[in-house]
Amino acid sequence: MTKQGRFLVVEGLEGAGKSTAIATIRQWLEGKQQPVVCTREPGGTPLAEQIRTLVKQVHTEPLTAEAELLLMYAARVQLLRNVIEPALAAGNWVLADRHDLSSRAYQGGGRQLDTGLINGIRQTVLGDCHPDLTLYLDIDPAIGLARAQARGELDRIEQEQLAFFQRTRQVYLHIAATEPGIVVIDASRPLPEVQQSILAALDAFWEQGYAALA
Amino acid sequence: MTKQGRFLVVEGLEGAGKSTAIATIRQWLEGKQQPVVCTREPGGTPLAEQIRTLVKQVHTEPLTAEAELLLMYAARVQLLRNVIEPALAAGNWVLADRHDLSSRAYQGGGRQLDTGLINGIRQTVLGDCHPDLTLYLDIDPAIGLARAQARGELDRIEQEQLAFFQRTRQVYLHIAATEPGIVVIDASRPLPEVQQSILAALDAFWEQGYAALA
Repeated sequence: MTKQGRFLVVEGLEGAGKSTAIATIRQWLEGKQQPVVCTREPGGTPLAEQIRTLVKQVHTEPLTAEAELLLMYAARVQLLRNVIEPALAAGNWVLADRHDLSSRAYQGGGRQLDTGLINGIRQTVLGDCHPDLTLYLDIDPAIGLARAQARGELDRIEQEQLAFFQRTRQVYLHIAATEPGIVVIDASRPLPEVQQSILAALDAFWEQGYAALA
Repeated sequence: MTKQGRFLVVEGLEGAGKSTAIATIRQWLEGKQQPVVCTREPGGTPLAEQIRTLVKQVHTEPLTAEAELLLMYAARVQLLRNVIEPALAAGNWVLADRHDLSSRAYQGGGRQLDTGLINGIRQTVLGDCHPDLTLYLDIDPAIGLARAQARGELDRIEQEQLAFFQRTRQVYLHIAATEPGIVVIDASRPLPEVQQSILAALDAFWEQGYAALA
């Protein structure tokens, strides 16, 4: 078996069950005896976590949509260069709670920012580094937000209106349907079924994608 | 006389004398009884000042050139939307300690970041808002840095090597020579002569540019 790890990303709206999915994937990787580095976005480095705080806090001063996008990518490039790329180069798997697809969905869909701007930044910042497999946990935002609300206080982005999250979901679904490497998991089902789907996707990736490269 | 203010920017390397120039311009505006809002970049709003701290601090974690650029523009768009544009719309003059030209010179020249990326972000973030007059205080970086060092501890960017500032100066001079609205002031001369040049540039702007629009 090769030592080369892979870059796995879990995506989805608030309350879709990302944390549980990540725990499931982590266990699966441990079962395969694969070394794993876990990250979250925005954040994951000392500097990027400071940017996360800026983005998540409720401010008196309005945070413009453009500044929000630029802050997200500033945090992302820090994480990419200082954590993700070195971890992959050292043969680890990287298991990420959100990555680039979040910006395309939230800032492109939710905030309706210009796709040209987003793609220009993506191209320069990300270059050739992209996830090998993304699991998108799909959920109706009305259900997801109710779950998130039950967990406690909502951050600045979680306080957006339902229409914001509906637009975000539409972009997630559109990109998942048109680009490779993204598996849509119906996250509205009971937890055991969701976990079953996640494990099936991982096993397929391992057999077809990863093993083929080993 | 119209109530419409103008957008004035002072640019230059560390130790070029920006603070003194700004004091001179402020006095000149007061003499003309013009209301003025002063800004500085990066910074100038509560959120942008937090970004300024991130950018200026010396971190254990390396701040990538791309993240630095994105943070600069995140701070800039906050200042532009929340301070500069409203101030101009209300008829004030805006007197800025640095603006967009700094990113083109420092991140494009000093850091040698891709001009295409910078221009893509500029276009989307700045749109049609640009300074009416920029005074670029030109100084040999060896002289400017010695002045800055004499003032006290240097921040993260001021700690760069001389070659970084020489590249930055070259971009400043190139843009000043090829784009309109930028006056180059030789800041290596004695202070009274520098101030004389600044006042002459302002008077010319007032007579030719501003008064013509009044």
